Amino acid sequence: MISFKNDYSEGAHPQILEALLTSNYVQESGYGEDSYCQAAAEILRKKLGNNAVDIHFLAGGTQTNLIAIAAFLRPHEAAIAAHTGHIFVHETGAIEATGHKVLTAEVKDGKLTPAHVEEILNAHTDEHMVKPKLVYISNATEVGTIYTKKELRLLSEFCREKKLYLFMDGARLGSALCSAGNDLTLSELPDLVDAFYIGGTKNGALLGEALVLCNEELKQDFRYHMKQKGALLAKGRVLGIQFLELFRDNLYFDLATHANSMAYKLRDGLKEAGVSFLSESPSNQIFPIFANEVVQELKESYHFEIWGKVDERHTAIRLVTSWATKEEAVTAFVKDIRRILQPQ
Amino acid sequence: MISFKNDYSEGAHPQILEALLTSNYVQESGYGEDSYCQAAAEILRKKLGNNAVDIHFLAGGTQTNLIAIAAFLRPHEAAIAAHTGHIFVHETGAIEATGHKVLTAEVKDGKLTPAHVEEILNAHTDEHMVKPKLVYISNATEVGTIYTKKELRLLSEFCREKKLYLFMDGARLGSALCSAGNDLTLSELPDLVDAFYIGGTKNGALLGEALVLCNEELKQDFRYHMKQKGALLAKGRVLGIQFLELFRDNLYFDLATHANSMAYKLRDGLKEAGVSFLSESPSNQIFPIFANEVVQELKESYHFEIWGKVDERHTAIRLVTSWATKEEAVTAFVKDIRRILQPQ
Amino acid sequence: MISFKNDYSEGAHPQILEALLTSNYVQESGYGEDSYCQAAAEILRKKLGNNAVDIHFLAGGTQTNLIAIAAFLRPHEAAIAAHTGHIFVHETGAIEATGHKVLTAEVKDGKLTPAHVEEILNAHTDEHMVKPKLVYISNATEVGTIYTKKELRLLSEFCREKKLYLFMDGARLGSALCSAGNDLTLSELPDLVDAFYIGGTKNGALLGEALVLCNEELKQDFRYHMKQKGALLAKGRVLGIQFLELFRDNLYFDLATHANSMAYKLRDGLKEAGVSFLSESPSNQIFPIFANEVVQELKESYHFEIWGKVDERHTAIRLVTSWATKEEAVTAFVKDIRRILQPQ
Amino acid sequence: MISFKNDYSEGAHPQILEALLTSNYVQESGYGEDSYCQAAAEILRKKLGNNAVDIHFLAGGTQTNLIAIAAFLRPHEAAIAAHTGHIFVHETGAIEATGHKVLTAEVKDGKLTPAHVEEILNAHTDEHMVKPKLVYISNATEVGTIYTKKELRLLSEFCREKKLYLFMDGARLGSALCSAGNDLTLSELPDLVDAFYIGGTKNGALLGEALVLCNEELKQDFRYHMKQKGALLAKGRVLGIQFLELFRDNLYFDLATHANSMAYKLRDGLKEAGVSFLSESPSNQIFPIFANEVVQELKESYHFEIWGKVDERHTAIRLVTSWATKEEAVTAFVKDIRRILQPQ
Repeated sequence: MISFKNDYSEGAHPQILEALLTSNYVQESGYGEDSYCQAAAEILRKKLGNNAVDIHFLAGGTQTNLIAIAAFLRPHEAAIAAHTGHIFVHETGAIEATGHKVLTAEVKDGKLTPAHVEEILNAHTDEHMVKPKLVYISNATEVGTIYTKKELRLLSEFCREKKLYLFMDGARLGSALCSAGNDLTLSELPDLVDAFYIGGTKNGALLGEALVLCNEELKQDFRYHMKQKGALLAKGRVLGIQFLELFRDNLYFDLATHANSMAYKLRDGLKEAGVSFLSESPSNQIFPIFANEVVQELKESYHFEIWGKVDERHTAIRLVTSWATKEEAVTAFVKDIRRILQPQ
Repeated sequence: MISFKNDYSEGAHPQILEALLTSNYVQESGYGEDSYCQAAAEILRKKLGNNAVDIHFLAGGTQTNLIAIAAFLRPHEAAIAAHTGHIFVHETGAIEATGHKVLTAEVKDGKLTPAHVEEILNAHTDEHMVKPKLVYISNATEVGTIYTKKELRLLSEFCREKKLYLFMDGARLGSALCSAGNDLTLSELPDLVDAFYIGGTKNGALLGEALVLCNEELKQDFRYHMKQKGALLAKGRVLGIQFLELFRDNLYFDLATHANSMAYKLRDGLKEAGVSFLSESPSNQIFPIFANEVVQELKESYHFEIWGKVDERHTAIRLVTSWATKEEAVTAFVKDIRRILQPQ
Repeated sequence: MISFKNDYSEGAHPQILEALLTSNYVQESGYGEDSYCQAAAEILRKKLGNNAVDIHFLAGGTQTNLIAIAAFLRPHEAAIAAHTGHIFVHETGAIEATGHKVLTAEVKDGKLTPAHVEEILNAHTDEHMVKPKLVYISNATEVGTIYTKKELRLLSEFCREKKLYLFMDGARLGSALCSAGNDLTLSELPDLVDAFYIGGTKNGALLGEALVLCNEELKQDFRYHMKQKGALLAKGRVLGIQFLELFRDNLYFDLATHANSMAYKLRDGLKEAGVSFLSESPSNQIFPIFANEVVQELKESYHFEIWGKVDERHTAIRLVTSWATKEEAVTAFVKDIRRILQPQ
Repeated sequence: MISFKNDYSEGAHPQILEALLTSNYVQESGYGEDSYCQAAAEILRKKLGNNAVDIHFLAGGTQTNLIAIAAFLRPHEAAIAAHTGHIFVHETGAIEATGHKVLTAEVKDGKLTPAHVEEILNAHTDEHMVKPKLVYISNATEVGTIYTKKELRLLSEFCREKKLYLFMDGARLGSALCSAGNDLTLSELPDLVDAFYIGGTKNGALLGEALVLCNEELKQDFRYHMKQKGALLAKGRVLGIQFLELFRDNLYFDLATHANSMAYKLRDGLKEAGVSFLSESPSNQIFPIFANEVVQELKESYHFEIWGKVDERHTAIRLVTSWATKEEAVTAFVKDIRRILQPQ
């Protein structure tokens, strides 16, 4: 069975494991105060072209989202997200468990616009309702789309005007920044958002996300929040070593580029075979639509996620590629589809 | 500089890294539903001689403590701990952040007795005070001591009688179970406590703790709590692979035995040199007392933690050994002490 | 200025003030353990025809909702409400502040059906999402509608089948039970819901809601939750005295009947004047639609709430009547409308 | 049976009930935005000689404490209290339920000094521990003592230097300010503390506390916190009317003076009869010590609280006087004691 189920089916890129091996016997401070974490933060600050940002390494995406949002907000303040936003449905109420409501806008393509946010602001007028204070976006989004520079700038300006924090979930930031239509660079992000994270888990690391705090207001005492929520790993070096390896040269972007190119190959192959898609995704998640019986047949040879019913007879599925996806797997899938769809 | 600062200064035992390497390209399910986690749980259940326990793998000790305690208690219920208990001081209010008070008893040796708990129960009589519901103990304790079988049985029986959950923090359970005076076995624990965890981070793993849920009442929906608190790692396999390696043969106990034997060698060497100790610790943490100027001199060649002032002129320090402690380091330390204390 | 803004613009019904006066010098126990609270609970149990329910008196609706829901749910469990439900928008995230997500169904008339709830259950399939556990309804609803016996029975049966708690917010239960189309009685509620409250504040009391716990599972330790959330009044007698007076004879229902009859008179008068309504409300809130300039003119003589824009030129307003609404006020309003709409 | 059990055994002072009666039919805005609350706040600001403070009316002491402290602190910050502090033991973990640890100092007389606070600060050095941020004191304290102006000034200066908020629980502030040894005035408080509350419930009101926010940093959005925690009463006027009556003239202080004078009479009578006391209390709570059999005999005619065992044969009890305590009750108690102690 070949899996296109997600981008965390394998372990880590071999360079990362190698880095863990070679550093294994060095004695270091605990809890992220080791020299690897420091070096990784230093390299990231360079890549970001910004010496003022604070960088913290955490173990996973939900953990990062919940600690950041809980640290940023006062008790009566709320986050705004797309209805497809990961924090709204797929984190088991992690944000609410820290006491904060998540307000949502219905969106078409996974992306929030100033108009979406404004409508929510207008509906929250006094102390009988929560006070919206933070806008949560994902890039790439949960449906594979990405923010253009212009879209992000408009949202950023709107948030500043309204005194809202803008927080970007970058679980798949690598894929977004390396995707075909992208015109954003990593180094532009600190000026556009108040905080964001650079996802490692879904782009070649064993585990790990690098949270970047750009807004001065959000920096103070952040390690207290990490400790309180169980996120300061005793051997924090494990995270630093990985990000050091990912960003020492260009590995992070190389891996994302590979994942994207496998997704494009898959997409193009399916398109040629006459397959249509739920959405235009330029990143490493694509959403082809098949007749229900085709989905059944595919299930015998491939792992993937059922995304949803399109109509009575058709279903969209999600195919995800990663740094580890092999070209043969893509070729095999396309070939199988051609065989299934054109049986003679 | 040699470090005796803690048992998490290095990476992982090489067999564990090797296991991560060999499994690296296998595609697996995410979030702890992979075959490695299942196999590790299976092996642990065998070692525990108990097929009914539920086992979950988490990233660290504070995370495990806070998720377990928050999942076990209703909002008005409180935990009881020794005043030296890790959850009381050294987890940044992690338990309180989930809404629960930690009640404490002043103890001499890090250990709770039924008498300690009873005094707290007697002081909490009605709904104007929290309702004590869970007893938190550590084995080994934060001051290096261990529970004997008899002590644990008495506490266990008392807790059952009073309908209190007994939860054991096993961050250093390996060291406890392999220490000189110990008469407890791993397989006796499920009958004695309602839940406990087997610490990996401080005994050779890169990261990871195995939480064992023994009491049927505590099992339901536990994965929801893990996800909600950010503890379900996407590549949960990372934890399973490590525990599989630690318990496949006897590695876990071998590593703990090594750490203990290094601690004993250190202790015996210091005793011979005339050094006295804050407490009798049979585990991998020892607490020698030195004149202040000796501590200053030691600081130039060794990392360790200052434990506290004993009197105006003397200080206790904490020395911790681990799976990675080299005999040369111990010998060197003892030799240095002999030189410092007997200068001619 | 006459106010139809809400049903809490005045103080308390004079009989209630009288009861406070006559009992004023009696010395009583604090925190709701006084003889008045006991007597009030006793009378309520009689009216409910149910000796097994537990009854607690609280100060207000939001307080009652948040304490009850937080006490009933475990950390990963969520409440289900209509999108118009008071807990979803108008309580400043009170439920989320206790850690619980509120899931919502879009409804037309303020009421939840089994189909609404089922759709939410179907969308919440595993531990990556919260676990729905409690269904929150209001009777009368926030848009003035009421549940028929059949509707409530169907919902109740569905909840039991799915192991969901059914909780009824009765801030305006008096008006609901005394309204024209109602076929429910107070004594039927303990069999149909797991908990509900009988609203005092909006039906003649100075302050106070009587929470009725019907399901055995929800009763234990409830006073702890009240105390922890700041809801045990030192002079708890204040609440008991009022409910005793409201239910000693028939005052509670008499007051609600008066409020309803004033609402009907208002509605009928407006209908005769050609006014249309946003919804058919049989309770003490009605929602007439006026041209925007009519609303402007009305504002000069009356207090009321703007409910929402119906189209560019029309607005719905909310008119609320109460135990204290005078017939002259209703007559004056209808007369003014007639004058405004028929300018000759 | 005569009760000296507490200062909330009766209803309200008759002037207050009268004020509720005369205002009963006036239509007012809800949720504390009525003209009575505004007028009461205005009068309080005058009495405080400070136009800049914000004033909010709440229903009870625990509610006020938990909302204020939760609003003032960020998630990782903690409160410091005396071990006898009401928030530490007697509020069912209300502060912890909002996520914050309460750190305590052992005190002799219910009062915190800079030395107590400093010791706690010194013990909390980094992000592995909570960050102390707020000092909670009570005046009068839970053991009847009061802060002198000098003591409060020293503590205030220390807190400002260390950037700690100083919060005063004034459940019995009336008694403190009217007690024999007091040299503080109400109008000095806004300069000395960051926030405090003026207790109504224990000094003649039916219910109600007036929270005074002095520090600009603590004022923003406070009504959101009140609403979120269920503390915005729909008929908020009930609180405003009472405080207006208490402070319109001098009623608040007259009532406290009466309570104190009854306590003094009781104390002096007992002293003359040879009774000794647990502490010197200048406020309306006194703590005489009796032989155990005397306590038994007293229980037949009086309600009071057992404070604690002094030795095997003696017990301290708590006697509380109030605005409603009758001189006859005091005389009767003293007479009974004389009779019991001098049996011939």
